[in-house]
Amino acid sequence: MNDLSSLRAVYDGRLLTEPADMAPFLTDWRGKWTGRAWAVAQPDTAGQVAAIVRWCHARRIPVVPQGGNTGLSGGATPDDSGAALLLSLRRLRRVREVDPLNNTMTLEAGLTLLEARQVAQSAGRLFPLSLAAEGSCTIGGNLATNAGGVQVLRHGNARELCLGLEVVTAEGELWSGLRGLRKDNTGYDLRDLYIGSEGTLGVITAAVLKLVPPPAAQVAAFVAVASPADAVELLQRAQAALGPRLTACELVSDVCLGLVERHMPACRSPLARRSPWYVLIELSEPRDEAAALAALASLLGDALEAGRVQDAAVSSSLAQFKALWALRENVSEAQGAEGRTIKHDIALPISRLADFITRTDAAIAARWPGLRLVTFGHLGDGNLHYNVSPPADRCGPAGSADAAWFLSHEADLNRLVHDAVAALGGSISAEHGLGVLRRDEAARYKSPVERALQAALKQALDPSGIMNPGKVM
Amino acid sequence: MNDLSSLRAVYDGRLLTEPADMAPFLTDWRGKWTGRAWAVAQPDTAGQVAAIVRWCHARRIPVVPQGGNTGLSGGATPDDSGAALLLSLRRLRRVREVDPLNNTMTLEAGLTLLEARQVAQSAGRLFPLSLAAEGSCTIGGNLATNAGGVQVLRHGNARELCLGLEVVTAEGELWSGLRGLRKDNTGYDLRDLYIGSEGTLGVITAAVLKLVPPPAAQVAAFVAVASPADAVELLQRAQAALGPRLTACELVSDVCLGLVERHMPACRSPLARRSPWYVLIELSEPRDEAAALAALASLLGDALEAGRVQDAAVSSSLAQFKALWALRENVSEAQGAEGRTIKHDIALPISRLADFITRTDAAIAARWPGLRLVTFGHLGDGNLHYNVSPPADRCGPAGSADAAWFLSHEADLNRLVHDAVAALGGSISAEHGLGVLRRDEAARYKSPVERALQAALKQALDPSGIMNPGKVM
Repeated sequence: MNDLSSLRAVYDGRLLTEPADMAPFLTDWRGKWTGRAWAVAQPDTAGQVAAIVRWCHARRIPVVPQGGNTGLSGGATPDDSGAALLLSLRRLRRVREVDPLNNTMTLEAGLTLLEARQVAQSAGRLFPLSLAAEGSCTIGGNLATNAGGVQVLRHGNARELCLGLEVVTAEGELWSGLRGLRKDNTGYDLRDLYIGSEGTLGVITAAVLKLVPPPAAQVAAFVAVASPADAVELLQRAQAALGPRLTACELVSDVCLGLVERHMPACRSPLARRSPWYVLIELSEPRDEAAALAALASLLGDALEAGRVQDAAVSSSLAQFKALWALRENVSEAQGAEGRTIKHDIALPISRLADFITRTDAAIAARWPGLRLVTFGHLGDGNLHYNVSPPADRCGPAGSADAAWFLSHEADLNRLVHDAVAALGGSISAEHGLGVLRRDEAARYKSPVERALQAALKQALDPSGIMNPGKVM
Repeated sequence: MNDLSSLRAVYDGRLLTEPADMAPFLTDWRGKWTGRAWAVAQPDTAGQVAAIVRWCHARRIPVVPQGGNTGLSGGATPDDSGAALLLSLRRLRRVREVDPLNNTMTLEAGLTLLEARQVAQSAGRLFPLSLAAEGSCTIGGNLATNAGGVQVLRHGNARELCLGLEVVTAEGELWSGLRGLRKDNTGYDLRDLYIGSEGTLGVITAAVLKLVPPPAAQVAAFVAVASPADAVELLQRAQAALGPRLTACELVSDVCLGLVERHMPACRSPLARRSPWYVLIELSEPRDEAAALAALASLLGDALEAGRVQDAAVSSSLAQFKALWALRENVSEAQGAEGRTIKHDIALPISRLADFITRTDAAIAARWPGLRLVTFGHLGDGNLHYNVSPPADRCGPAGSADAAWFLSHEADLNRLVHDAVAALGGSISAEHGLGVLRRDEAARYKSPVERALQAALKQALDPSGIMNPGKVM
């Protein structure tokens, strides 16, 4: 049934079947999940994608779509049955259109986010999606997982940056919804249904993405605050004073800063004294840097005077701007260098965020003394990477007794954190999606009505259940 | 089967059955559509809505949800079979929560948009949805039709201003998705599926809406330009120079301005000379008016020097700001005072907008000499109200030979305009929805694949087909 010659007959692109060729596609980049596939298809066009899915649909062969394979939730790794075809979209790499006057570009799914940003830049525009994996994650994957990142406060998630989609349906038909329109009320919102569905309803092959004029100047401030509550107060103050010129507002704990300084010797706090928490503020100006610096100075002056801020350093060059951002962007890697990590990608109403940190920190400290809380994230979006590291004296490598002890508490720790999130009206997956990692937990926190609605949508758009089975649902 | 006593038994709110009581609900506000219903239910709570829909679902009785009854496409008027229950949401009027720190408010569906804006203002915030019917349209209706308006350029459509929903499903179950989160990737996007579905998939009973800090200052400019192409050039210039401080950019033709001046004697152009086109620019500043005026002066100076702008008037008081806006906001009413109108609510890629106007104007003039094109709209969103009035000497009242002659060309005129829109990748319903008015035309411009996907979603969420039958699909 799964005969390769009949699949080879429907498209003339790449088809990998040798274990060594397939291996890079069958393990996620962190090595957390490994699966099997009977083949890896690498089509070159959307038409080829449709032919492959049509072929799989006729034979009820599961299809696992994959972009840059940089996901954090196991959404792009097949299970270990070996029944699935892995469908890599990385060779769909055409720039279909760039329209600076409409502030849009139409790209195929396999371009990386970095390439997408470069296409925008060449047209004198900014594509504002920005995240750590941008050199290897793809536009298709960004949309399939509704990626977030550091500019969501101002520009929204991947969802908000997409005007139109081209999708191969679960039955192998090509839907062209590549509309470059800000307004279109002509039926149900298919676009937003496919965005964030992690390849379980169809395959995104191209998208119309929003562009914005690039800012003329960007400045950043690294600000010491006494508590999460003061960090939230500073956010509110910055929103009022700067309006949409506030383009990022990130939270970093002193534990995080300490790890970055330990593992990245080039990274140093610009402040003379330590503080339990820091806020990184980024301000973008359409015209000139002087106005940006003046606005930032005025904001920080007011906050210092009100006693809600302890100290602050403001960037006065691009190098300094990058150095301040490096303190935030290196947290995840620095934590990784410290041994195993347990990660939580959670979102909360911003009004509950400080309360959440205080109470959950205390609950964890009471139950597991010595565990280190490595808390940072996108304050302006209410999105915390509420991560946990083992005690400093129990950081043994993978496979050690220390690591086994630490990971034996993972399920209980997840339960404690996610119960607290749910109790405050939050989300247990803010920007990383469900994949297999959070699938069952997500179901636990959803009402029966919501689970039934989700199942009805899956059934409607993928009636034979071949699209990325076992993910999300 | 449709026995009232059994319906009265499931909820204790209002139930109208007398023709005189029901009449206001059975004709749209413009008097364009009139239908019949066997009763009008006016529940007071979401729980009552669920009980009513459950009751209807069990009996396969069609349900037509209605908010403020201000729609322009007949989406809230029942057909004339008399089989449907009209479900008025206007008595669901509770403010469930206002959370200024999270920049959200949770409102029930029956509050008017104006009331919603007032709730926001009382909390020191702005709810930026703004449109002509705001005194009577409801939040539920705004979301069910994904309303647009004059601030979309900066803040998006109703869709982009909603974080969470509470919905009564087509089977009468209550789904609570009232999440006040900027990020939540835990499954398929139910929220955006219900938004814009015009009551055909379920009934929106409450929503979490986004708030923003109010601007400290707003200024407007009324700018004369020679052509639609120059208007688009000015938009691009304004986006580059003002960034997100540009909060509205509207287009008005001299024909529109002439009608406003004729029918609203208080409204007068601030410019000494006529011009074929005008652009209304609104700039909002988080801090002070002086900065706003300086930025606007600099923008207009550059555009004048480049010869892309003929003349401009800038508001220097709130009264002047309102007077400039009145020139734009009264176009629709002024056109109505001139006799029958044929309206097109279309969206185009902004890069195709000038071309569309030039070519379509010429095609209409060639085929129907003397028809007046009353073109205005939301330039920044690519959304034109491409309206048509009869020749000045054939403006007879409704029922006259003139009116009959004019309306006899409506279908051909729609076809010409909408074919031109479709050929340029546009939308035939930008912000007014489909209702019954554009249902069949929309289907004509959609591919068979898209029609099949839309039908699958309707079938999945409203399997017995009771929700607002005959609308959208």
